[in-house]
Amino acid sequence: MPIHPQLYGLVVVLVRPRNPLNIGAAARAMSNFGARRLRLVNPYGVAFREARSAVGATALLKDAQEFKTVAEAVADCSLVVGTTAVRNRALQHQLRRLDEHGGDEIRTRMRSTPVALLFGSEKIGLTNDDFSHCHWLMNIPAKKEHISMNLGQAVAVCLYELTRDPSCEPVPEKAEPATAGEVEKICKALLEALHISGYVKPGSDAMCEKKVRRLMLRFNLEAMDAKILLGMVRQIVWKLRQSDSD
Amino acid sequence: MPIHPQLYGLVVVLVRPRNPLNIGAAARAMSNFGARRLRLVNPYGVAFREARSAVGATALLKDAQEFKTVAEAVADCSLVVGTTAVRNRALQHQLRRLDEHGGDEIRTRMRSTPVALLFGSEKIGLTNDDFSHCHWLMNIPAKKEHISMNLGQAVAVCLYELTRDPSCEPVPEKAEPATAGEVEKICKALLEALHISGYVKPGSDAMCEKKVRRLMLRFNLEAMDAKILLGMVRQIVWKLRQSDSD
Repeated sequence: MPIHPQLYGLVVVLVRPRNPLNIGAAARAMSNFGARRLRLVNPYGVAFREARSAVGATALLKDAQEFKTVAEAVADCSLVVGTTAVRNRALQHQLRRLDEHGGDEIRTRMRSTPVALLFGSEKIGLTNDDFSHCHWLMNIPAKKEHISMNLGQAVAVCLYELTRDPSCEPVPEKAEPATAGEVEKICKALLEALHISGYVKPGSDAMCEKKVRRLMLRFNLEAMDAKILLGMVRQIVWKLRQSDSD
Repeated sequence: MPIHPQLYGLVVVLVRPRNPLNIGAAARAMSNFGARRLRLVNPYGVAFREARSAVGATALLKDAQEFKTVAEAVADCSLVVGTTAVRNRALQHQLRRLDEHGGDEIRTRMRSTPVALLFGSEKIGLTNDDFSHCHWLMNIPAKKEHISMNLGQAVAVCLYELTRDPSCEPVPEKAEPATAGEVEKICKALLEALHISGYVKPGSDAMCEKKVRRLMLRFNLEAMDAKILLGMVRQIVWKLRQSDSD
């Protein structure tokens, strides 16, 4: 009997990491618990090079992929989860605890599709813009008085939890979920429609973009539905453009 | 309701730690999870001094006690547990997994009496002599291929597990769902947009209406999201109508 459920479907995404020791520690925890796919968004270049060339750097660190944006890093993932220590930030997002339902859903989903788990930079964590790419947020329960966890330790704790044997929880069959890349296409098209139709007020572009993305992610689109919705929105955009240029 | 069971009864014992960063990381994890009592057995002196004087060193690190032997360090504890990554060493000791019965027993015992949790040095872990002070050993399940965990991460994972509340499995908060009437309004508006934009082919009205409704119902809209979406679609319809009548 294998001791660990496969973490093969898990993609660990470090967003703007600054410290080579932390990058190395995250990679080491991944090796310990059997996760393999490491991606870095806009890492501090020197840190990434140092971490890679460190003695004992793991193979998965050498294979780590680098991306410019969160959107690109999670494009093939059907579930994107951001980690946060904070519990009562005025969050637009649903917050689940790692040791309760957060872990359960990730365990279930990553059996069939890639799931991205995002960790923010050492100083500021994930930003609201990063959050807008997430379906929901996961809280690692820590003491209020000392809430900020070390990056490598946060990764270790999450992976430990995800390798737990859930034993009791039966898996509900779910249709193939849409990837983040597919959802992003819908967001882009819908935003264009909202622009042309005057829904987006001047100066509110960025806010509106986040609003649309959060909305779409909350829909938890299946792949087939994403395709239908994209077709609809694109047709509407085509018509709006045509009228707009008349 | 406190989120964490008290780790007050827990005594974390680092046996012969060599690296100041690891000592600091162990202390930090303790702060995160609310453990307070740190003891070091025969630490490498320079490392301990460096860890203590580091920027951001926690109060509990400054209060850490130093002992010459394991026996002295655990003298006031009624349960002494050694940690080990190894699973099938020829052990004289009972081995329990952290995520199974190991965690449970420690959680129970530390409510009434001090429980010592021993972590070995970075290189060799705990020795047989150290084990001889332990009631039983606890295994942090890790991959066979890469079994040795970083000290700070091992401490973090153990404390995370010990702060789990084994009793509670609360139901996740679910936002107020949209009513069928609200969903229907969105369907109507979206259908009009699809009509004007030419998405609905002649003669396919009824089919398209069902398609849209099924799609919207699969989204499982929350009341708030339904409102947002209706606002968006209505604005688009307004623009499409305007253009259409030009």
